[in-house]
Amino acid sequence: MLSKLFVLFGFIAADCVQAETGRQAWLRYAELKGPSLQQYREAIPAAVIALNKSAIAENAQQELVRGVRGMIGRTLREESGIPKEGAIVLGTEVAIRAAFPEWQTDEALKPDGYCLKTIRRGQLRYTIVAAQNDRGVLYGVFHLLDKIALGEAIDSLDERQSPYAPVRWVNQWDNLDGSIERGYGGRSIFWDDGHARADLNRVSEYGRLLASLGINGCAINNVNADPRILLPALVPDIARIADALRPWGVRVAISVDFGSPKTIGGLDTFDPLDARVTEWWKSKADEIYRAIPDLGGFVLKADSEGRVGPSAYGRTHADAANVVARALALHGGLIFYRGFVYDHHMDWRNFKNDRARAAYDNFRPLDGKFDTNVIVQIKNGPIDFQVREPASPLFGALERTNEAIELQITQEYTGQARHTVFLVPMWKATLDFDMHARGDGTPVKSLVAGTISERPAGGFVGVANVGLDDSWLGNQLSQANLYGFGRLAWNPNLSAQRIAEDWTRLTFGDDPDVLKTIAGIQLSSWRTYENYTGPLGLQTLTDITGNHYGVNVEASERNGWGQWHRADANGVGMDRTVATGTGYIGQYRPAVASMFESLATCPDDLLLFMHHVPYTHVLRDGKTVIQYIYDSHYEGAAAVRQYVRDWEALQGRVDEQRYSEIRAQLEYQAGQAQVWRDAVTNWFWKTSGIPDAQNRVGHYPDRVEAESMQLQGYEIVSIVPWESASGGKAIQCEQSQCVASFRYDGATGWRTIRVQYFDQNNGVAHYSLSVAGELVDAWAANDGLPTQKLDGSSSTQRVIAGIALRPGDEIRIEGVPDQGEQAALDYVEIGTDRE
Amino acid sequence: MLSKLFVLFGFIAADCVQAETGRQAWLRYAELKGPSLQQYREAIPAAVIALNKSAIAENAQQELVRGVRGMIGRTLREESGIPKEGAIVLGTEVAIRAAFPEWQTDEALKPDGYCLKTIRRGQLRYTIVAAQNDRGVLYGVFHLLDKIALGEAIDSLDERQSPYAPVRWVNQWDNLDGSIERGYGGRSIFWDDGHARADLNRVSEYGRLLASLGINGCAINNVNADPRILLPALVPDIARIADALRPWGVRVAISVDFGSPKTIGGLDTFDPLDARVTEWWKSKADEIYRAIPDLGGFVLKADSEGRVGPSAYGRTHADAANVVARALALHGGLIFYRGFVYDHHMDWRNFKNDRARAAYDNFRPLDGKFDTNVIVQIKNGPIDFQVREPASPLFGALERTNEAIELQITQEYTGQARHTVFLVPMWKATLDFDMHARGDGTPVKSLVAGTISERPAGGFVGVANVGLDDSWLGNQLSQANLYGFGRLAWNPNLSAQRIAEDWTRLTFGDDPDVLKTIAGIQLSSWRTYENYTGPLGLQTLTDITGNHYGVNVEASERNGWGQWHRADANGVGMDRTVATGTGYIGQYRPAVASMFESLATCPDDLLLFMHHVPYTHVLRDGKTVIQYIYDSHYEGAAAVRQYVRDWEALQGRVDEQRYSEIRAQLEYQAGQAQVWRDAVTNWFWKTSGIPDAQNRVGHYPDRVEAESMQLQGYEIVSIVPWESASGGKAIQCEQSQCVASFRYDGATGWRTIRVQYFDQNNGVAHYSLSVAGELVDAWAANDGLPTQKLDGSSSTQRVIAGIALRPGDEIRIEGVPDQGEQAALDYVEIGTDRE
Repeated sequence: MLSKLFVLFGFIAADCVQAETGRQAWLRYAELKGPSLQQYREAIPAAVIALNKSAIAENAQQELVRGVRGMIGRTLREESGIPKEGAIVLGTEVAIRAAFPEWQTDEALKPDGYCLKTIRRGQLRYTIVAAQNDRGVLYGVFHLLDKIALGEAIDSLDERQSPYAPVRWVNQWDNLDGSIERGYGGRSIFWDDGHARADLNRVSEYGRLLASLGINGCAINNVNADPRILLPALVPDIARIADALRPWGVRVAISVDFGSPKTIGGLDTFDPLDARVTEWWKSKADEIYRAIPDLGGFVLKADSEGRVGPSAYGRTHADAANVVARALALHGGLIFYRGFVYDHHMDWRNFKNDRARAAYDNFRPLDGKFDTNVIVQIKNGPIDFQVREPASPLFGALERTNEAIELQITQEYTGQARHTVFLVPMWKATLDFDMHARGDGTPVKSLVAGTISERPAGGFVGVANVGLDDSWLGNQLSQANLYGFGRLAWNPNLSAQRIAEDWTRLTFGDDPDVLKTIAGIQLSSWRTYENYTGPLGLQTLTDITGNHYGVNVEASERNGWGQWHRADANGVGMDRTVATGTGYIGQYRPAVASMFESLATCPDDLLLFMHHVPYTHVLRDGKTVIQYIYDSHYEGAAAVRQYVRDWEALQGRVDEQRYSEIRAQLEYQAGQAQVWRDAVTNWFWKTSGIPDAQNRVGHYPDRVEAESMQLQGYEIVSIVPWESASGGKAIQCEQSQCVASFRYDGATGWRTIRVQYFDQNNGVAHYSLSVAGELVDAWAANDGLPTQKLDGSSSTQRVIAGIALRPGDEIRIEGVPDQGEQAALDYVEIGTDRE
Repeated sequence: MLSKLFVLFGFIAADCVQAETGRQAWLRYAELKGPSLQQYREAIPAAVIALNKSAIAENAQQELVRGVRGMIGRTLREESGIPKEGAIVLGTEVAIRAAFPEWQTDEALKPDGYCLKTIRRGQLRYTIVAAQNDRGVLYGVFHLLDKIALGEAIDSLDERQSPYAPVRWVNQWDNLDGSIERGYGGRSIFWDDGHARADLNRVSEYGRLLASLGINGCAINNVNADPRILLPALVPDIARIADALRPWGVRVAISVDFGSPKTIGGLDTFDPLDARVTEWWKSKADEIYRAIPDLGGFVLKADSEGRVGPSAYGRTHADAANVVARALALHGGLIFYRGFVYDHHMDWRNFKNDRARAAYDNFRPLDGKFDTNVIVQIKNGPIDFQVREPASPLFGALERTNEAIELQITQEYTGQARHTVFLVPMWKATLDFDMHARGDGTPVKSLVAGTISERPAGGFVGVANVGLDDSWLGNQLSQANLYGFGRLAWNPNLSAQRIAEDWTRLTFGDDPDVLKTIAGIQLSSWRTYENYTGPLGLQTLTDITGNHYGVNVEASERNGWGQWHRADANGVGMDRTVATGTGYIGQYRPAVASMFESLATCPDDLLLFMHHVPYTHVLRDGKTVIQYIYDSHYEGAAAVRQYVRDWEALQGRVDEQRYSEIRAQLEYQAGQAQVWRDAVTNWFWKTSGIPDAQNRVGHYPDRVEAESMQLQGYEIVSIVPWESASGGKAIQCEQSQCVASFRYDGATGWRTIRVQYFDQNNGVAHYSLSVAGELVDAWAANDGLPTQKLDGSSSTQRVIAGIALRPGDEIRIEGVPDQGEQAALDYVEIGTDRE
């Protein structure tokens, strides 16, 4: 008994003392202040009653107590019956109606839906949270707490909320060893060293975050599945994780390997039409459901990027999906079959080949052949989470198949949580895109929700990949993507602005300047990132065969992976027209296809995704393509520098730790944006031969290249790809320490010195900067960027502001290598921008 | 070379990332904002020149660079000569005059003094920091930085500052094992396990804090000296510490044991008149000065509280002081001979005995017999750092002897850093007190500074006892005492308000509400503490034979320690009059003595220190003594509760960590103030038999005694002293867990529950509180209070606000003992005050 109390009291104590680290995310329940506090103290009744007695319902009641205690400083009484005083009453519709026969409703709630309603009995006021099921009660409680946190009135409620779609899931690409594929928030909260973690507190906290958004399912291991997940020894681990998430109404799912019957099942085949394989999947499902009766189901990636699949036996994806689906069906389980299937050994020399066609080509012919508990899980675009893609044509093509849209919360191609990119506007662009599947009015959101084709299951899957870091995602501002995914999955009709503002207020409080700045950064951040990494539908111009992070314009070309942009001396873009190209555009319904097919109507934002055009092609704003590429990169890089300035104006208005973390992140991003800007613009200048009309590209009057400095010990090296270093060269030190120096020849004044150096992940080099013999800065290259090389991923900027320079001053950088890191330098820029 | 750079860069990096922990104290150099930042950016020249090349002068230059970088974001150029542009020029008067012949001064600076002066040459503006010595240059730099931090103009300076007295020292009562006698800020920054710490960075940081105040000496070991400090093996340790403090102009001193010639010197005597002893001290001094040529000297506590002294051989204190003084004189060293000498085996039954007489009786006859490098170090009052004492009569009695006043920064009798008590007003009361030593106009400050008797040495010694905690003193607000001591030692004419406000602005920034609240708490805090611990000159009514912390009204009585207050059934106070008492008052000069001697003129604040009066004696405000004792205790306890409320209004305006620490400290203090209030008032009620006119004492309508609750497992115990627990009783648990419960019989409403429990230091008991079956709070008794017993020192209050109570509710406390801590409880109070 007492031990249970002390588990609870752990929560209570934690509430009191925790600093703002981001771990509580948007559920901080920060104490209200002033008139707002007084108002809620008057409005809040003293008692709370949970009419249902499930674990979820009791959790809902505790969450309400916790939230009210945090925000209003009052501990609600947990009563067992309706008291003779005002109260908050939680319950399913059935239970509420028994207690309040006077409560009339004309419209039925959907599963997980809820209503908040004020009922008066004479002088007494009851605040009702009624729901279709226990999960809905929990969601209603979170919504009531949100209202308090956002300062909305709660004394006269009459509100109904139902989810837009039944499937609102997250996937975690966590490996059983505790690493996370494309995870940027630390190690796995679920797994370590082949088993579930001993301490699953963070899983429970994650369940709370998910429940607050209405997310009701979570796949807990990588879609590139380790077959061992289906070993009997792992079942208790999965069950423990399910136990941690269950009170939050989150069902667990697992990703499975299609070869499992053979690799761990002892069969000599995994042919989906083999009866032994059918039986194996059934008996495996039975085994797992005995331990976890409410398992959500399986996720399956087959015949993709090296994963085995039905093609091994000449079977179809429907054969593969259905053999698993039938094993799950008896238990009410779903199978999410990933539509991300393509050939990554395509012949790049064939201009008719097109990876973008793959999902449609593979799945369209199978429409109607999938069992009803199969959901085809389709990435938002036809390629792979690029900075901008059109909606996948497959959404509009399946009429008798359950669909879910797969959105990537973790920022694989959008800065890997080192760049602030708020993805909600991007997702909304796809969700709101009308596929004209049955005439007008069939946006992607309605197709995946199954409301058009009246499919029983479907909805939204977000690849979240949270980790053990306090920030969950490796960047405080990136939390808004998890939040925004959940809000959209519940209601995709919400505006990006509403979501950004709600998130900011819940996460950082009510200061209007803080709200304006943070929401402003978030809402412009996608366009900003696109501007410096891949405008006009070029996709993210990164190292697509490597880390998917730093700039590498040609990484997409001349290989079988098919992310080609086809830039050459004359023009750029992938011709996907029906008339002269790959015919991809023909996969869209006619109304959509005709818009994309014609240069006159194709949106400029997707121009180079759909068409190959000369650099001199004129866009709607009157600029040529090449000049737009130059301009957008300079705009994007300048925008991030402005973010830093905007953020710095919030010092003292945001808690110290998060202020410092975000400031450092934005300043780093500003340096990286400059690397991208210079690399992409120089690459296109060299390739096109057309100079920048504003004469910026290739001309850096404030810059001194490292290779042109006086060097002691440093040697000059060529960088690959050449565009990722200024002038294509850098200097590196293979001695115990080296020096690079030069004399300042500018005017007298206060200056900002920017040192562009390389921070690889195979050592911790040290640098120091002296001016006229005086040490003015020193730093360690100790970040964990995803490269061991000197390239665009390791290129990092150190900003030293407020230096008094005089003509003739020696500027001297000393570097001390460490292990594989050779204290490399690209250049120094001397400007006035931070003064 | 590079390694030196990286030591420096450690500083640079630290400046960027450190959160507000208190470790930077008032030297945070927080970045200025808005117009203020712009103004200084325009006013600050780009260059700084240190004309002198000593370690202190170079340190001064670096400190200026550091401060300007932190506050203004600009890195000054360290030039080697006067440049042809505006500059800040640092140097001794001689050096400055050589560079600026046009600089005229008519008044000489004292040692350590400095001036700030703007000199114009055509369009060029030079900001001069000129000083009598290098130390003064450093002080001038700190003063210039203070001006920037406080927003004062720096473009037209003309200011001279000289110290009030040559001696401005701190003593540290650090033991060689790393513990600190009466230290509340953690372990020693100097010592660990018998030697100087390997890492002396905190010593250097401490030196910086001291230098910023103009403090120029530091005794680094306990006055209750371990003889081993004089062993040859310790000399390198002392030298390392001196090296760390030297760049800050702080000379090291050591405390020595007078028996050393015998205990560690191999002699069979320590008779100060024995030639071998004389020679031993001389040769020991020579040995130490060879390693530390600028050692400040020795501190000596002899014939006091068990320390050996000259009395062993029938010699005088002058004999003792002089034998050491002569050994030091050749090296320019000083000896601080402590005046804190008294008999702690006095017969308490003799009403003529009086410990307060001791310092005068011991030292007055020796006036003129001390060598010129002896300083008699006299505590501010005649007893021992009590919450209020009169100025020691010895200050006015020595005419041919150097004096220093010993003030205690560490709060031995004033709450041990667990209570906020700003001591500057108390110190000022003594420093400004006119001793009438030579007619009017001889306040204590002028006597100790030697300005009256023209003594060569003298001044101010503060017992600081900082430790390794980030807060230095164990309480963020207590830092103001170290700061205030330093400011007063430089200029005792400053007002307490000025010091409190400067400290607050430097330490917490410029928010006017923050300034008002913090300065308000500080300035009233001494009176508040006095009000609940010992008003009217009673002294601190604590456990004076034990921890000097919690309440124990009779601890002073019926023993030989002589802190008697002589309270009995009829009256209270120590009769120190000449007419009928101990004659102590006769030690003052006539003008002072006559004021104290007469009830008509004796200040009420010191009434019971000077006189024994009946409880019904009427004070100047018309109250009787007994009613004043009751009222002041209620006022004091209420004031601390108000501090908590005032502080809570600053949430979000003070950095998180310090906000939380101070909030917790003040809330704890509020609980302790209530313990003191109840203990003292009940003790006097019981002793005097006179009830409180307001009927508060002994009547607690909101209180339920633990001993009257329903107990499961708990047993009732009597507490010693009885007054430190409500009703004299508590309950404790000798089983694995126990329960105490009762039913609430008050009205319906939101209530605050206060649980008074005992937090001893010999275990970590756990408690939980349930109301009507609902867990509403749980906590661990994990503080390190200075007692293993159930008493006033361990009595602690847990405040649980915002609880909805209904008549008949069961209130239930579960306790789980741990080791020696038995989850004891005193009472529960249910009120509305936090609602």
